Amino acid sequence: MTTTRKKRAGKPSADAQKKTSRGLRIIPLGGLGEIGKNITAIEYGDEIVVIDCGMKFPEEEMLGIDFVVPDVQYLVEKRDRIKGIFLTHGHEDHIGAIPLVLPRLDVPLYGTPLTLGLVENKLLDARLTYKPDYRQVQAGMTVKAGRFEVGFIRVSHSIPDSLAVFVRTPFGTILHSGDFKLDATPVGGQGTDLAALAELGKEGVLLLLADSTNSERAGFTPSESVVTKSFEEIFRSHKDKRIVIAAFASNLYRAQQVFLTASRFNRKVVLVGRSMLSYIDLARRLGYMDVQDDLILTSAEAEKLSPNRTVVLTTGSQGEPFSGLVLMSKGEHRQVRLGAKDLVVISATPIPGNEKLVSNTVNRLFACGCDVIYERSQAIHVSGHASREEQKILLSLVKPRYFMPVHGEYRHLVRHGQLARDMGIPMKNVFILQNGDTLLFEGEGQVRTGGRVQSGAILVDGMMLGEFEGSLLRDRKELSESGVLTLSVVTDDELRLIAPVRIESKGSVFAMDRDNMTPDMEQAVTKALDAARAGAVERHLLTAEIRKRVREVMSRNFRANPAIIPMVITVDADKPNDTPAPKTAGRRRSRSAKKRSQAEA
Amino acid sequence: MTTTRKKRAGKPSADAQKKTSRGLRIIPLGGLGEIGKNITAIEYGDEIVVIDCGMKFPEEEMLGIDFVVPDVQYLVEKRDRIKGIFLTHGHEDHIGAIPLVLPRLDVPLYGTPLTLGLVENKLLDARLTYKPDYRQVQAGMTVKAGRFEVGFIRVSHSIPDSLAVFVRTPFGTILHSGDFKLDATPVGGQGTDLAALAELGKEGVLLLLADSTNSERAGFTPSESVVTKSFEEIFRSHKDKRIVIAAFASNLYRAQQVFLTASRFNRKVVLVGRSMLSYIDLARRLGYMDVQDDLILTSAEAEKLSPNRTVVLTTGSQGEPFSGLVLMSKGEHRQVRLGAKDLVVISATPIPGNEKLVSNTVNRLFACGCDVIYERSQAIHVSGHASREEQKILLSLVKPRYFMPVHGEYRHLVRHGQLARDMGIPMKNVFILQNGDTLLFEGEGQVRTGGRVQSGAILVDGMMLGEFEGSLLRDRKELSESGVLTLSVVTDDELRLIAPVRIESKGSVFAMDRDNMTPDMEQAVTKALDAARAGAVERHLLTAEIRKRVREVMSRNFRANPAIIPMVITVDADKPNDTPAPKTAGRRRSRSAKKRSQAEA
Repeated sequence: MTTTRKKRAGKPSADAQKKTSRGLRIIPLGGLGEIGKNITAIEYGDEIVVIDCGMKFPEEEMLGIDFVVPDVQYLVEKRDRIKGIFLTHGHEDHIGAIPLVLPRLDVPLYGTPLTLGLVENKLLDARLTYKPDYRQVQAGMTVKAGRFEVGFIRVSHSIPDSLAVFVRTPFGTILHSGDFKLDATPVGGQGTDLAALAELGKEGVLLLLADSTNSERAGFTPSESVVTKSFEEIFRSHKDKRIVIAAFASNLYRAQQVFLTASRFNRKVVLVGRSMLSYIDLARRLGYMDVQDDLILTSAEAEKLSPNRTVVLTTGSQGEPFSGLVLMSKGEHRQVRLGAKDLVVISATPIPGNEKLVSNTVNRLFACGCDVIYERSQAIHVSGHASREEQKILLSLVKPRYFMPVHGEYRHLVRHGQLARDMGIPMKNVFILQNGDTLLFEGEGQVRTGGRVQSGAILVDGMMLGEFEGSLLRDRKELSESGVLTLSVVTDDELRLIAPVRIESKGSVFAMDRDNMTPDMEQAVTKALDAARAGAVERHLLTAEIRKRVREVMSRNFRANPAIIPMVITVDADKPNDTPAPKTAGRRRSRSAKKRSQAEA
Repeated sequence: MTTTRKKRAGKPSADAQKKTSRGLRIIPLGGLGEIGKNITAIEYGDEIVVIDCGMKFPEEEMLGIDFVVPDVQYLVEKRDRIKGIFLTHGHEDHIGAIPLVLPRLDVPLYGTPLTLGLVENKLLDARLTYKPDYRQVQAGMTVKAGRFEVGFIRVSHSIPDSLAVFVRTPFGTILHSGDFKLDATPVGGQGTDLAALAELGKEGVLLLLADSTNSERAGFTPSESVVTKSFEEIFRSHKDKRIVIAAFASNLYRAQQVFLTASRFNRKVVLVGRSMLSYIDLARRLGYMDVQDDLILTSAEAEKLSPNRTVVLTTGSQGEPFSGLVLMSKGEHRQVRLGAKDLVVISATPIPGNEKLVSNTVNRLFACGCDVIYERSQAIHVSGHASREEQKILLSLVKPRYFMPVHGEYRHLVRHGQLARDMGIPMKNVFILQNGDTLLFEGEGQVRTGGRVQSGAILVDGMMLGEFEGSLLRDRKELSESGVLTLSVVTDDELRLIAPVRIESKGSVFAMDRDNMTPDMEQAVTKALDAARAGAVERHLLTAEIRKRVREVMSRNFRANPAIIPMVITVDADKPNDTPAPKTAGRRRSRSAKKRSQAEA
């Protein structure tokens, strides 16, 4: 993969380097000021544990970028000290960078069976031969990792087997909430273990790091089980229709509810979308899902049934371009054609940035003639993250001395920090940090933000190769807005044209009026060559001069500003024709001398 | 400006062409299946009136496009028949295409004083010399336009002086709602004229075209005056802070409320942002706004006051890159620096597609240390469009025989149509059309969708030049994702290289490993040339062959797929050096013959 590094300003400070062996240090390397690429290092003496190792999806302006992973150079340099990576759950923003990072660190990987199963699938997809040192854990356990004791508490989230992770250190206990909500009536019965949180709080928690995703949302996040009721109501009132449900493939509770409701209403389920099949297959193999084999049909088998006896469970709830639902909405899906006899239920809300993709999909679905249920008001989706009242409950159970909001854009962290202050934690004990900052505990009551360490984003485009600055993205942005114009200028060594100027364009308005514009371009090039021959422009600035003059022509005639790539190629006309041989100084001189004398004549 | 035409499928059908002189035809040329570029033609016999002429902002995938206007070729061909363009109000999506369209049609332009004033400003900005035939109208008036009688009814919206427009035709009356809401307590006292709507309904309305923007929103849109109360509450509870309010520049009611509240709380107002200044200046000149001169200060004047005695009213509520608020959030605004002593109020909700821009702005504002009020729950913004209950009231007042939802994406139109059906309009009388469709009334009860006319989108990029298909945007998309690689290959007329292959790249990962990759590229080119010389590849396919081989190298080594532009330039080494002269067949032949004999030797 090709990667672009977006460095955080500033090199690791000398301060940060020296203090490595003193005190307790918490270093968020990702997930602060952003949604995604969650990773946190906890360091004491010369030992480190890492919590999560996620990726994030590219921002809109990251043109051509496939995904983004955290810069873990800091960890790579200290890999011998790392006692393990501890995964809270199996979402991409918590495990997605493992295939790129784990082989470089080669440390034990801790997680619940489902989480590790999802990691294993990712490694298979990436065709990596690397064999991780998997260490399976479960809620309620503690494990030793160097001088640390690491423990796991069950939390409710939108994927099964999610954990909060606590780390007991000589300075006190650090609790990382992972992604959580406080669902009192969870599907599958796996609620957040409030008692374990309370017990830890009683024992004493030095620092809480907690999920800030929904810190702008008042009240409580509804229980996953409200979706059961909505599904039942929908199935009841659409008995004449085929029902197509789009959901996140990783939301196995949602899939479980589709299976249960389908079974109750005597329908069979058809699964569509590679990731939907893969998640459900893994969950069934590992025993996370209770589904009779005969409930699931292939598309071919389903065709023998009346459509209103089937449910299609598909990917595409985010309007992803090649997902099941989107292909269906475009009439391009090989198995499923939608029409007036279909009801589509989008059982998800758009992730910020996907709003347009989703609403375009809904428009196309309506144009297919089907009914569509897609609104938040219909209770067909609930969030997996705690709202403000739940965040308050966590704080009051855990009673941390210090608090660091994590997992959120800057405004989420600030709002979560304000909430903690409202709960009675003094503002000086609340730390709104940035990726790469260090929170340093040096002794009783001695806490401060220490130096910064290397951190940032590695942009992954295709195939890893190296690392470089953001000029690639700037260039792509320029190209995307105005296209490119490229000119081949072939001259002799006296800078006289020996072939017509060749102009090609792509994505530029030049192509629209090429015949009219070509003479102006040629003139611009000729003038630049004249200036260079006359010595008014230095030879090594000739390309820049051509670019400048061509840009003027484009700007004057089109008000357009494409990228301009001039290539000046000097050919020695006398050299042998078979290979590009080095120039023969003698010959060139004699010829030049001859021309010069002609010019002077 | 350079423009790209996105044609609606299908040419004008013969049917549509022939029937021009028969019956009554309603032709939406824009605004259906989209938010923006609203324009509708109403045609009877050989006379036409046009309602609105708006632009829309480009979709995300329209790379480098500045804005989009409707294709009005249909109207241009019938310009002699057009009796006038009637503007409902002064928003860009209703007047924005006037500078491009009106000079081509050269017909009278009807609107209220504010609307025409905004048009005049647009023409000045575009530096057009064209002088429109302005016809000022006001609510309550009717005017003759050929055989049509056109009347105007006051409606409430988020800009003053908005109108619904009705057109009396020999077949019956057509009412176009414009953008409207039913604000019972409007700011400035200009509410929707329910009585006039009821009267028209009593007289009989053949067809209603109505605003569908909020047809997904249940209940009533809150009154603009709820914002007054919120502003008062905010001013009361932040007496120690400077208050910065960002709003749409066109929302003059909002500005009026800022002025009123500022005056009440003894603060002065500083205006920031070119369009904010321009709108308020026009509104004051035309008497639409009641503001004492001494209430408004320049930034320089305001500096003499304590910051908590001032309010800054600025653009940037949508996170627009160079707007006042965004520059402030980046610390780049020349006059206003934000810090802990500031409260920022974003008095708008993000337009779909702007969500990320707005939330990035909020993040930066928090990072500046200021307080930010930006949530819908705080009642600091209300929509200007009718929600479902208001849409129902309009339908029940007007009691149209036929109904055509307009102004909305497809899902909005469908939902509005379903609402009309629920209100008792038979589904066969509800027409969900697409741009370019014709609704044709031929006689009593004889109504059908007739043929399609040319319509679509003209994408405007810089400077108008011509029209062409969407390949430009496809090319830009390709460039934006993988960049470009361009190769200059200079050969003699035997296709032997006479200079090293020149490779340049931009936005491509090639640049990261150029030294290692160049030999592979050269080899790919050499092989293509060899194949052409050997006759295995036809000469005119040489460029394609080079592209193919270079693509293989890029794909194999980088898994990258940049655009590839090979340029093969053949130089006749014997020709004179001064100008690119035509080849001399005799010379070339003799030389080729010589080389061939060498090769055969």
